[in-house]
Amino acid sequence: MSIAEKMGKLLAQRRRGFSLPQGLYLDPEVHEFDRRAIFERHWLQAGLLAQIPRSGDYLTFEIGGTSVIVLRNEDGGIGAFFNTCRHRGARICREKTGRMGRRLVCPYHHWSYDLQGHLAQAPRMHPGFERAGIRLAPVRVETVAGLIFVCLAEHAPDFAPFRAALEPMLEPHELIHAKVAHTVTLIERADWKLVMENARECYHCRAGHPELMRSFSDFTASDVSGRTEEWIAAFEGRCEARSLKTGSVIGPWYELERFPLNEGALSYTMDGRPAVAKRLGRLGDGDVGVMWWAVQPNGFNHVTGDYGFFFQALPTGPMETTVTGTWIVHEDAVEGVDYDLAALTQVWAATNDQDRALSENNQRGVESLAYMPGPYSQTSEQLVLRFADWYCGAAERYLQWLANP
Amino acid sequence: MSIAEKMGKLLAQRRRGFSLPQGLYLDPEVHEFDRRAIFERHWLQAGLLAQIPRSGDYLTFEIGGTSVIVLRNEDGGIGAFFNTCRHRGARICREKTGRMGRRLVCPYHHWSYDLQGHLAQAPRMHPGFERAGIRLAPVRVETVAGLIFVCLAEHAPDFAPFRAALEPMLEPHELIHAKVAHTVTLIERADWKLVMENARECYHCRAGHPELMRSFSDFTASDVSGRTEEWIAAFEGRCEARSLKTGSVIGPWYELERFPLNEGALSYTMDGRPAVAKRLGRLGDGDVGVMWWAVQPNGFNHVTGDYGFFFQALPTGPMETTVTGTWIVHEDAVEGVDYDLAALTQVWAATNDQDRALSENNQRGVESLAYMPGPYSQTSEQLVLRFADWYCGAAERYLQWLANP
Amino acid sequence: MSIAEKMGKLLAQRRRGFSLPQGLYLDPEVHEFDRRAIFERHWLQAGLLAQIPRSGDYLTFEIGGTSVIVLRNEDGGIGAFFNTCRHRGARICREKTGRMGRRLVCPYHHWSYDLQGHLAQAPRMHPGFERAGIRLAPVRVETVAGLIFVCLAEHAPDFAPFRAALEPMLEPHELIHAKVAHTVTLIERADWKLVMENARECYHCRAGHPELMRSFSDFTASDVSGRTEEWIAAFEGRCEARSLKTGSVIGPWYELERFPLNEGALSYTMDGRPAVAKRLGRLGDGDVGVMWWAVQPNGFNHVTGDYGFFFQALPTGPMETTVTGTWIVHEDAVEGVDYDLAALTQVWAATNDQDRALSENNQRGVESLAYMPGPYSQTSEQLVLRFADWYCGAAERYLQWLANP
Repeated sequence: MSIAEKMGKLLAQRRRGFSLPQGLYLDPEVHEFDRRAIFERHWLQAGLLAQIPRSGDYLTFEIGGTSVIVLRNEDGGIGAFFNTCRHRGARICREKTGRMGRRLVCPYHHWSYDLQGHLAQAPRMHPGFERAGIRLAPVRVETVAGLIFVCLAEHAPDFAPFRAALEPMLEPHELIHAKVAHTVTLIERADWKLVMENARECYHCRAGHPELMRSFSDFTASDVSGRTEEWIAAFEGRCEARSLKTGSVIGPWYELERFPLNEGALSYTMDGRPAVAKRLGRLGDGDVGVMWWAVQPNGFNHVTGDYGFFFQALPTGPMETTVTGTWIVHEDAVEGVDYDLAALTQVWAATNDQDRALSENNQRGVESLAYMPGPYSQTSEQLVLRFADWYCGAAERYLQWLANP
Repeated sequence: MSIAEKMGKLLAQRRRGFSLPQGLYLDPEVHEFDRRAIFERHWLQAGLLAQIPRSGDYLTFEIGGTSVIVLRNEDGGIGAFFNTCRHRGARICREKTGRMGRRLVCPYHHWSYDLQGHLAQAPRMHPGFERAGIRLAPVRVETVAGLIFVCLAEHAPDFAPFRAALEPMLEPHELIHAKVAHTVTLIERADWKLVMENARECYHCRAGHPELMRSFSDFTASDVSGRTEEWIAAFEGRCEARSLKTGSVIGPWYELERFPLNEGALSYTMDGRPAVAKRLGRLGDGDVGVMWWAVQPNGFNHVTGDYGFFFQALPTGPMETTVTGTWIVHEDAVEGVDYDLAALTQVWAATNDQDRALSENNQRGVESLAYMPGPYSQTSEQLVLRFADWYCGAAERYLQWLANP
Repeated sequence: MSIAEKMGKLLAQRRRGFSLPQGLYLDPEVHEFDRRAIFERHWLQAGLLAQIPRSGDYLTFEIGGTSVIVLRNEDGGIGAFFNTCRHRGARICREKTGRMGRRLVCPYHHWSYDLQGHLAQAPRMHPGFERAGIRLAPVRVETVAGLIFVCLAEHAPDFAPFRAALEPMLEPHELIHAKVAHTVTLIERADWKLVMENARECYHCRAGHPELMRSFSDFTASDVSGRTEEWIAAFEGRCEARSLKTGSVIGPWYELERFPLNEGALSYTMDGRPAVAKRLGRLGDGDVGVMWWAVQPNGFNHVTGDYGFFFQALPTGPMETTVTGTWIVHEDAVEGVDYDLAALTQVWAATNDQDRALSENNQRGVESLAYMPGPYSQTSEQLVLRFADWYCGAAERYLQWLANP
């Protein structure tokens, strides 16, 4: 049975509103399929523009064995290339972020490329070797509100509606002046879809996330004390008085929303007070709730008035997902002066690790002979259902494309 | 070639009386087949009744990715369930043994089940969600002489003849009043069948097990000094005087026997003296030899007058077997008072680890281009031959069932 | 698609003069194919005669799960056998080198074999068991100039031309009186072919090997100062005055050459001076350059006047190669007296580890979606091209043999 046939069967077995058929969470061939159909064909958040301010600055981003270089070129624009030398295929940039000056130089045999990706020098090649026409393969790249997105496929989903929706809501946080304060990487023994299902609901938060619950309450719960329509309207009024858009946008592969934290909380911290003295953007005292955006297939992001937390899940093997958590603060915020790193990271580091344990336990249970898809709560797990719908739709579109490219 | 075709060919190649064809020891697909055909369809020893004395006590037992909960329910009976929540499939019980009170509560979203496995509560599900009829999938469970056995298949081998044979021979040791004193887990880089072939013969004992040989002599050896028919008859007479059955039973998937240790030895210890002052059962001074039972596919067990040692092998990957050794003593025996843990475990811990090295070395040799099945000794390796016959028979029965379910 | 079909397609895709199609570097099935087609069918350098001087001395050598015993037998000859007992397949010799006396005794059940491999004793087998005709499977073995080579296949490539070429060039170094001074093993996360491509060119040396470049200059570079025809002729003259052959031999699966080091350098050391006071062979002051031989598929070797360095790469998994570096010195050289181990090993230990990093980085780049074969330099990478040609030819010959055995 080919993987296309297998996927066709698994998708046909799927019952909408229920967790996925077992094979979709376990099968190593499905892992390969997801890499091709999902991760190599959709927009992925690759970093911050502020990480590469000068010409020659670069960052690398890896997806399922494929590394991408994103760089600032000489005219201040952003370029992206596959990080694979045209000689014998070595990786050219070996660091997460760096600076290469005017040339990308392969460390293996010193072939060098200009910042547009054209081969500039290839020492000691034979007479008659033609450099012209040899260049690094380009990668699609887009930027919005200080963020960089890449897509490995030539035919990428339309980025414009996402930009139009995100730009006005996120721009006031001025991520263009942010920096990475901390990164945590977790290797989780769970399929990436279980990791994302976990990441798309807060139904488990009361049982699992005591630190997070100090400042945040799940909107889908009907029993949160004090969360009245009036209270929400008052929050929205305060935001609008600062020219901040509120409300939510639901797009085909993204969701955005500005929402309030608990009464009295300005940030995701243990006491609800901001963790960073030097605030982000044009946000006054920071009483701006959370600007949140989620991107299919693999990420969600929260920015408050003082810091941002980005969550990204990448499959790195069958039943293995690498989760990266990134904390960002204003570029001028100084650790130990403007913020204490432990206090900044406490809530999301704990939450992230609790989610790892929950996802891994979910994976173990799904491996059972007795697993069968169970019902999502239509009130508490709508976003999980949206994720599952999106995934199955994207998988089906890829199968159609395979059959008829 | 399907796995059924492949297994059919490998079984047809097998020459009876010889070790198995190479593919049966190496092929990752055979590992999968064995999980389905052998481990998910036969009785496996899961623990002691004495580990779960009170209502709400549970233990978990894992077989090839499938976890089972065995619990004591409110009327004192024993129940067993697949450890997989009917919501999104998380594992409910995460510990080896524990106590859950009146409800099994899934740690993920707090769905809870009563001790019969019925869904009792599912907070925050949508209006119209029907709880009735949702229950944990049950697992077949049997108990005998203080032991718990589970079988994942609906159609399990007949347990009654095994119970009838084991009960009278083991009951006087009163495992109903035993406790686990120590457990050792070894991850062995060898196919589980090589581990079991090693476990089914003592042909290698003189070369490999000096500690064990202090109290034990292989029955299949013809040259053990002092082991005369008269000497054995005297041992049997002493046992019968205590109403202990002697002799052996050979069943379709089990073997039982009471046999004597070396002259003067009462237990598997370095000096032959009991390791535990507080003895097991109604056994007087403990001059009762060893009550031994082996269960296909994966275990053997020894109980003397003072302690028991249980050996169990579970495949956890291609060419990987997890062996668990468990020492049991009377529930009232106190470590440091009634027994010294190092002295209790010395013989079998050493033997177990020596067997690990032998099995791993066997695996390495079997991986050679030059491996070919060699002859079992018909005098020294009868039980290995029985194991191989049983395995091949069970595999063939499964293939027949696949062809005609 | 069968592996034969897959390999046929990949080889047909290959464009000569370019690095190999991606699948040849990544596919786990190609790894298996290479084991069968390449490593189990060609001559591999297994060790030194000087490691097994006395009757009963042995060394073991492992290739893709198959272990070989090479031993010195009673008449001083060399024998080789598969290291797999004919009983249940255990490995008989468990050490890299050792001494077994007059019998090879399996550690499992003490079956024993004489030094010709015939079963001599099998204790406790059943009446009627026939020992006659049972013997360890022999392995083809050849020796030349103190080196031992084995080939697992019955029909091995012709060894005679290699011996005829190597013997006169290497014999004066008298490896018959050498010993192993040090061994380093590196597990590299790269396909063995990428490791060998790296090992077959010095195009990368200037960028990657500062320690090596102190005494050595790549011959394929046209811009090495002082390396004139006259200078080389002078070196050759000095060698011939000592009855040392110079020049190179290019055979179907081997290459040999004696070449000079940099002006003033006598050895691969940081200062170019010999690392070992007690020199190898009949080589006077050691001004003999380097005697170098490379063997397809997997090795190269350098011997100077004072020491030798052997490099061997063995695939141990998909995209995993185990590289062994071996330093040899005169058997009478005493560590701490005649040589300092750190000084002896510094150049090649550094070079080896740099090559590991380069090969692993090459592998990562080759895994990219964007990898495509790139052009080898016809001046700087001729030996890489020869390696790739040899590999593809050997693979094709194996496919033909499979189709028509």
